[in-house]
Amino acid sequence: MRITEIRQLSVNLRGKLRNAVVDFSQHTVSLVALVSDVYRRGQPIIGIAFNSIGRFAQPGIIQDRLIPRILGAKTETLLSDDHRRFSPQAIARTAMLNEKPGGHGDRSSAVAAIELAAWDLNAKLAGEPAYAHIARTLNKPLPTGGTPVYAAGGYYYPAKSKTTLLDELLNYRDLGYNSFKIKIGGAPLHSDLQRVEMALRATQHPNTLAVDANGRFTREQANQYGSALQQFPLKWYEEPCDPLDYALLAEITRGYTGPIATGENLFSAIDTHNLTQFGGLRGQQDILQMDPGLAYGLTEYLQMLKVAEQAGFSPSQCIPHGGHLINLHIVTALGLGGCEAYPGVFQPFGGYAPQCRLEDGRIFPSDAVGFGLEQKPELKDFINQLTEV
Amino acid sequence: MRITEIRQLSVNLRGKLRNAVVDFSQHTVSLVALVSDVYRRGQPIIGIAFNSIGRFAQPGIIQDRLIPRILGAKTETLLSDDHRRFSPQAIARTAMLNEKPGGHGDRSSAVAAIELAAWDLNAKLAGEPAYAHIARTLNKPLPTGGTPVYAAGGYYYPAKSKTTLLDELLNYRDLGYNSFKIKIGGAPLHSDLQRVEMALRATQHPNTLAVDANGRFTREQANQYGSALQQFPLKWYEEPCDPLDYALLAEITRGYTGPIATGENLFSAIDTHNLTQFGGLRGQQDILQMDPGLAYGLTEYLQMLKVAEQAGFSPSQCIPHGGHLINLHIVTALGLGGCEAYPGVFQPFGGYAPQCRLEDGRIFPSDAVGFGLEQKPELKDFINQLTEV
Repeated sequence: MRITEIRQLSVNLRGKLRNAVVDFSQHTVSLVALVSDVYRRGQPIIGIAFNSIGRFAQPGIIQDRLIPRILGAKTETLLSDDHRRFSPQAIARTAMLNEKPGGHGDRSSAVAAIELAAWDLNAKLAGEPAYAHIARTLNKPLPTGGTPVYAAGGYYYPAKSKTTLLDELLNYRDLGYNSFKIKIGGAPLHSDLQRVEMALRATQHPNTLAVDANGRFTREQANQYGSALQQFPLKWYEEPCDPLDYALLAEITRGYTGPIATGENLFSAIDTHNLTQFGGLRGQQDILQMDPGLAYGLTEYLQMLKVAEQAGFSPSQCIPHGGHLINLHIVTALGLGGCEAYPGVFQPFGGYAPQCRLEDGRIFPSDAVGFGLEQKPELKDFINQLTEV
Repeated sequence: MRITEIRQLSVNLRGKLRNAVVDFSQHTVSLVALVSDVYRRGQPIIGIAFNSIGRFAQPGIIQDRLIPRILGAKTETLLSDDHRRFSPQAIARTAMLNEKPGGHGDRSSAVAAIELAAWDLNAKLAGEPAYAHIARTLNKPLPTGGTPVYAAGGYYYPAKSKTTLLDELLNYRDLGYNSFKIKIGGAPLHSDLQRVEMALRATQHPNTLAVDANGRFTREQANQYGSALQQFPLKWYEEPCDPLDYALLAEITRGYTGPIATGENLFSAIDTHNLTQFGGLRGQQDILQMDPGLAYGLTEYLQMLKVAEQAGFSPSQCIPHGGHLINLHIVTALGLGGCEAYPGVFQPFGGYAPQCRLEDGRIFPSDAVGFGLEQKPELKDFINQLTEV
């Protein structure tokens, strides 16, 4: 059993979305296919995944560094001990041959796309959904109850716009979401506070509205927002400062009694270790948002979870960045705190397949094999393009 | 005045070098050319640089993300205030448009190649060597005395080899070096200690031999080596552990009274800030080795130096990784503690041009304009290939 070919496609995100820091209209994502020599109904079984959303496709690193290492490795070194599955750990380790330590940036999402495709491939070989396959592989109980999901968005609307932030969130509520996240930092503090008050009118329970500063605040702004936001029953205050500025985060955390969330821009276990050691975060309160698809895949993410657990964080405090099918399966398998969704945006990758059920703020993966990316209509053409013989 | 074209070439390192962690025979470097519309003697003035050594060429990131942003920017936004030079700062900032914070890995060396080529271009426009141009731009006195340089190498030789480590270092001494660095961690501790003793026989003064573990040790190994190395008058003990494991570094530093060196695998000012805050390093003693060519270029490196200074480190404690012409000019311009050289290896990029003078352990840049890469015979064909009309 071997991998015969690794294919990739850089896919542009659709639409004109932007947050306080970046314009996503130029963003791309790497869709990757691991083609195996195992055939079913005349077709090779192919593992498919992508490197989450928000940090660009990695065609260069994948083509120049990762593919030659994996296709150049001895077949059996990429298999599980019983030789019945591929080993995502061994595939990730092989992809990293001759790479120096440190510098966990673009490389981490290039490796992630391939490592996650190995999980999809294994789940397809086993004929089961990825959430069930991951749970079984890790000796965890088969999950049944779906997972909490919140709708992220909360964009800025021009003053004369007919649509308001409240309309947007009420629309999410109609879709079945009962927890939300909105942007802050794109307007002066007093307008942002009015927006938070407006958004709270869409909520039915306390601690169901989060705010996200996308890592843009200076020390002064972060602390001003912290003091002002403290009056509201917020779910969390996200990325108040540079994601690597642990000392500043610790200062902000000391001045803010509610939950803080961060981690989507940390891509390794050692960075997570530094965050939990030096960032002043509080076990049993704050939220960790590392995203396997940007961080070398599920193998490294499991190390991050171990680091988090040793620092006093429970799985329910881990809520990955990246609202898409891959993270839905991972969150469900591991019993983490929840998933995000960006209804309608970050297409073709964002969101879930129509066969996934959204009910009372919980989302349930379908019973498609693997991550079920094939069920997502927006991805269909790209997957066809990648898997055509 | 504008940049008309940005060209790049991925160049393989020659030879079969490997350290305790990586095999460099598969390594590549991005050689980059910024072509201007300023003509001299019928030829466009072209800035040339590369992204140091050891972390791979970045053709994908440069082509897909950086070049379109820079060539798409309004001409005047890339110029200095007086419009007589290009602005390396503005070019680096433009290259980073729509990039999220954090994740300072491969992207950092892609941006560096372009930012450094802008310095080469500016020095050529001014008709002066890069060291003089950088010093003048930063309002520093024109440097005259060259800069200390040490020979790095100290490889492992088979027991029956006719050449020994001592021969290697004595050969460096004959070339004009009086300070050396050798590898450790590729053999058991007792053999490594014998190697250190042998190497010390090539030195004529204390504190002229450094040892490099390339970030590979576990806690136990790092501390064992630290205790055992303490008996020797070493210049420094380099990268004992994972370059991002600040807590472990602090522990190792507490147990080792001599100088520790690290930083070559940190690629941003915020990572440097974390190192100086949490790594237990001692101002006025330990050595910082961040490398501008891997870390967004000289603009970010100046921020790193500021962070280091605020943490109590003097310029003489900053000795960048990467023994090549670009760092020679930067170290000379800024009056830093020294340069490294890997005599004969990491070609075609490693080492200096024949016109650079090596004397009593100091190296003097030539008076070629820019970084003088055109004077390096090993680079000639590649530069010709890149600059042909």
